Amino acid sequence: MMRTRPLKVALLGCGVVGSEVARIMMTHADDLAARIGAPVELAGVAVRRPDKVREGIPAELITTDATALVKRGDIDVVVELIGGIEPARSLITTAFEHGASVVSANKALLAQDGAGLHAIAEEQNKDLYYEAAVAGAIPLIRPLRESLAGDKVNRVLGIVNGTTNFILDKMDTTGAGYQEALDEASALGYAEADPTADVEGFDAAAKAAILAGIAFHTRVRLDDVYREGMTEVTAADFASAKGMGCTIKLLAICERAADGESVTARVHPAMIPLAHPLASVRGAYNAVFVESDAAGQLMFYGPGAGGSPTASAVLGDLVAVCRNRLSGATGPGASAYTQLPVSPMGEVVTRYHISLDVADKPGVLAQVATVFAEHGVSIDTVRQQGKDGEASLVVVTHHASDASLNGTVEALRNLDTVRGVASIMRVEGE
Amino acid sequence: MMRTRPLKVALLGCGVVGSEVARIMMTHADDLAARIGAPVELAGVAVRRPDKVREGIPAELITTDATALVKRGDIDVVVELIGGIEPARSLITTAFEHGASVVSANKALLAQDGAGLHAIAEEQNKDLYYEAAVAGAIPLIRPLRESLAGDKVNRVLGIVNGTTNFILDKMDTTGAGYQEALDEASALGYAEADPTADVEGFDAAAKAAILAGIAFHTRVRLDDVYREGMTEVTAADFASAKGMGCTIKLLAICERAADGESVTARVHPAMIPLAHPLASVRGAYNAVFVESDAAGQLMFYGPGAGGSPTASAVLGDLVAVCRNRLSGATGPGASAYTQLPVSPMGEVVTRYHISLDVADKPGVLAQVATVFAEHGVSIDTVRQQGKDGEASLVVVTHHASDASLNGTVEALRNLDTVRGVASIMRVEGE
Repeated sequence: MMRTRPLKVALLGCGVVGSEVARIMMTHADDLAARIGAPVELAGVAVRRPDKVREGIPAELITTDATALVKRGDIDVVVELIGGIEPARSLITTAFEHGASVVSANKALLAQDGAGLHAIAEEQNKDLYYEAAVAGAIPLIRPLRESLAGDKVNRVLGIVNGTTNFILDKMDTTGAGYQEALDEASALGYAEADPTADVEGFDAAAKAAILAGIAFHTRVRLDDVYREGMTEVTAADFASAKGMGCTIKLLAICERAADGESVTARVHPAMIPLAHPLASVRGAYNAVFVESDAAGQLMFYGPGAGGSPTASAVLGDLVAVCRNRLSGATGPGASAYTQLPVSPMGEVVTRYHISLDVADKPGVLAQVATVFAEHGVSIDTVRQQGKDGEASLVVVTHHASDASLNGTVEALRNLDTVRGVASIMRVEGE
Repeated sequence: MMRTRPLKVALLGCGVVGSEVARIMMTHADDLAARIGAPVELAGVAVRRPDKVREGIPAELITTDATALVKRGDIDVVVELIGGIEPARSLITTAFEHGASVVSANKALLAQDGAGLHAIAEEQNKDLYYEAAVAGAIPLIRPLRESLAGDKVNRVLGIVNGTTNFILDKMDTTGAGYQEALDEASALGYAEADPTADVEGFDAAAKAAILAGIAFHTRVRLDDVYREGMTEVTAADFASAKGMGCTIKLLAICERAADGESVTARVHPAMIPLAHPLASVRGAYNAVFVESDAAGQLMFYGPGAGGSPTASAVLGDLVAVCRNRLSGATGPGASAYTQLPVSPMGEVVTRYHISLDVADKPGVLAQVATVFAEHGVSIDTVRQQGKDGEASLVVVTHHASDASLNGTVEALRNLDTVRGVASIMRVEGE
């Protein structure tokens, strides 16, 4: 059964993930060959710093000319682990044009131009796989695209960024403030020197765009995703959350509207009940909760980053793409047939937890309640705490649109008796 | 792109799952067509009771002659939802021989003769998919077979039977005994009139055989799986578990031996720490925890049974098989190249929690400890409780083989001072 001519793989990028991919390809060559039905051979590795010692990788495979490598014409699969938009996009395009299929872990590129790359792949009758782009080792793209292909996904709720989950978990369990928890994450290597992409939600937003597109069989670009970071979450917010039987997570949320005619995608911190399976996802772990018509509630959990876990996802794709090449077929590509539009954040409907600093005098609650009512936002519970002429009012609403909530908050700010809006937090997963 | 000649599907069995598959095929025909690239048509439904009203299924599709249906020759995919060994096996074989691919949810048959059926499928160049056979809606077979195809799975630890998890969860949360919890499960429809297959672990053992074979790329038959039911778990066991910071679950455990040269598969109740992700799997939900070299720890969670969830898995397979037929390829089939042998239960190494009823007199602990030492079983902790001349001794061991533990227990029973062995429970997931 075994074909003897090996499938040739070009690796673009040989950092934490790439070196692990190369290592496993060499140490587990027999297993990979048995599972694919033909040997795979590392045919070239494009790097920026050719002088760096790369244990186990023969020096003659190393090149700095990635373009020449993907143009060789004998490459079966290009594994793109460079990240970023360029030169990754051009290299992938060139790879397709020169007969290769592509495995990528590049969430930024896929979120920005997945549709364009899929179109070129389809034109060239090649595969484009990228399980590693979302939530590291956790099988997510394949289950959404294939296992749930006969179902109707209504919602995807995910912890898809390990850095921010580590920070929030630390705040939750130790009572630390944001800065203190971030410092610990940095010291332990869970946060980068510049943590902006993580803590401001850019990384999660890219993953939300990819997941939403696949889940709803439509096109969702990075710009379609509402994004709010978690740098303003405070210890007081965690205390409020605990009072409600909740914790706080940075969530990527992709939803089909109630009427089924549109979808939304957003990233922001939110309270979720402690009983929700996502609430107990600790440390830098990721987890994605999927709700569909027939399957009901599913959750996928695991390490969302790191060299080995990401390499596992890359190699799973590599095996699949190699098998497809041997059988002369391609796997399921982009599916955007529903063409569902992406609605703006104002149309998202959820619940809210609002903390107000108010004057401690009679009639304040009535004034505040009137403002909510005038904007069509129904109140679930109110808690009032007062001392020394100052008071706080914590309002939890029923479901309301983001636009209505924003109108409410603006009007509240204009009330003389409201000294400030201390925090607004969405409540999800109920 | 859309092909107009529809793919023809024959449904064998139209019970809780089958009727849901048929319903979704008709109500979501456009979605399925878009995702497959061609329409799918329900071409026939084989049932035992043709007179039963089946809403939405045209009467002319109903037949009692399943064999004639699979022999028609124009059927693209046979969906086998009859269950049991025969006539399911013969019908699947006949389906392959007459040109169809097969989607099945039949765990008993796949556990007993998966290798044989895969061989026929491969001979005929057809697909055999059965995501629904293990853990209902939870994508598990596909992630193990495809997503982790480039990784090395070392262990699969699963709650794969909803009935027993419901009963154990009830015992855990309410303090109920086994019979009381079983009665409630029956009343709520979670347990069948004859619950033997569930509570004695037969159902879980079939799933363990299937999972072990796929995870380790070898052949594991039902007979290879050690099986112990959960009917003897008591409220006292739960109290002991709580004292250790554990709960009790019926687990299906598939492991690669430490030397990598063999595997084991077993089903039995076990204590697991409350901090383990499987500990918080409530009610009738299923979850499977997978440990692999590169990916690390993954968990897959969701509803493990029921008409709609199982139909979701069946339809995911149906879409995949239809796509394969359109591209003239087949998906990844059986992979048993490692030919790793399955070791007997005696070679399984784990930890144990043993409760002994002993005489309350000096020297008993020394006697007991000597017996453990003589059998090479190292003790981690001992707790002694005495009253009125009777005493109990709770021993938790370090890792030891099942054979050593059995030898120890036999010798303990022969001690004059040991009045009885109240319970032996394995401790997993640490």
